[in-house]
Amino acid sequence: MRDEVLRRIHTREWKPGDQIPKEVELAEELGCARATVNRALRELAAEGFLDRRRKAGTRVATHPVRRAKLDIPVIRLEIEGRGQKYAYGLLYSERRTPPPEICTNLGVTPDNDMLHITSLHLADGKPYMFEERWVSVAATPQIADADLSKISANEWLVLHAPYTKGDISFSAVLASDTEARILRTHKDAPLFLIERTTWEGENGITSARLLFAPGYRMHSAI
Amino acid sequence: MRDEVLRRIHTREWKPGDQIPKEVELAEELGCARATVNRALRELAAEGFLDRRRKAGTRVATHPVRRAKLDIPVIRLEIEGRGQKYAYGLLYSERRTPPPEICTNLGVTPDNDMLHITSLHLADGKPYMFEERWVSVAATPQIADADLSKISANEWLVLHAPYTKGDISFSAVLASDTEARILRTHKDAPLFLIERTTWEGENGITSARLLFAPGYRMHSAI
Repeated sequence: MRDEVLRRIHTREWKPGDQIPKEVELAEELGCARATVNRALRELAAEGFLDRRRKAGTRVATHPVRRAKLDIPVIRLEIEGRGQKYAYGLLYSERRTPPPEICTNLGVTPDNDMLHITSLHLADGKPYMFEERWVSVAATPQIADADLSKISANEWLVLHAPYTKGDISFSAVLASDTEARILRTHKDAPLFLIERTTWEGENGITSARLLFAPGYRMHSAI
Repeated sequence: MRDEVLRRIHTREWKPGDQIPKEVELAEELGCARATVNRALRELAAEGFLDRRRKAGTRVATHPVRRAKLDIPVIRLEIEGRGQKYAYGLLYSERRTPPPEICTNLGVTPDNDMLHITSLHLADGKPYMFEERWVSVAATPQIADADLSKISANEWLVLHAPYTKGDISFSAVLASDTEARILRTHKDAPLFLIERTTWEGENGITSARLLFAPGYRMHSAI
């Protein structure tokens, strides 16, 4: 069913913008249950091939938006998944007053009790990612008792502080002096940066900058 | 249903690794149809909150993999969606022998008839993205007749050569002399690079390098 609809879109038997037959007609023509047709069309709409409008019916998308799915695993599992040996070093962990941009990201005030943690993740003994993170102790009080020299804040949070929503952004930046020293590269090397902020309901939990060593590539299928 | 399952995971009433009740038991307890339970659990498994194994039943994921969805629109729509004015300039378009890495990406031989296209996309008159693209004329013969000074290869391909699968990767690179001149920045500026290769079945269609001007950030919700 799904394959047949895709075939018609790809061969341009159904052109961009065309209205497609009604579900009940497709079900009859292709000899399958209407529920099957409905599910296939909903999936293809979610993937951007079709536009479904309540009154206007279903049309072939004029500009299909392709959707890539990015898996965001715990960094240890990402490295082990590449067949490399994972190691982790805590650089420091301190209760500190959060800077204004972190307060904005998390929607907290500067008097919020926050933990500032920096750490280095290594793959086969080489720096892989430098993590700088702020965690709201108010939102996740148990982190005050965690031994962050043994387990990374990244992994601890995944296990103990599930979140309901988050923002993620990706960009390219130049290594600062400090970042270059930590990642064992040179100043002004090109670094892939992931910034993540997560909330549990309305409570900001954590905001992190993940800086990857030069050469990092993030992959996905579309 | 879905919210109740998420609540139990988030409050750790169901802990990572715990086996959860059978679908029929959950349906009875929560007073909803078994099909509803089944759909909610399948969705939560797809989102990485649950592990479903045929024989071992359904467990709370020990390391939830969060999945970000990235929408990949036509670049014109991305710029217009930011409320900016889109402009496009074709730099050149030539039939050329593809270099070895493009042959590898697309699974074609060097005698494949290919079009090499470079172009610049602008937002509010400023360079936004520099596109360097190879298109297999063998796989999409109509492109030979397209006026690529009027419509970008990016948009033409979306409209005329839908694909069935693709690879996408993201990284950070330094601007070369030429790239810096085209993007009106300086050599060694940090650039966000998207590399995309798409196929229709087994036929490689196109392989592109999309280099974004400094400051570009790609966003998503998780």
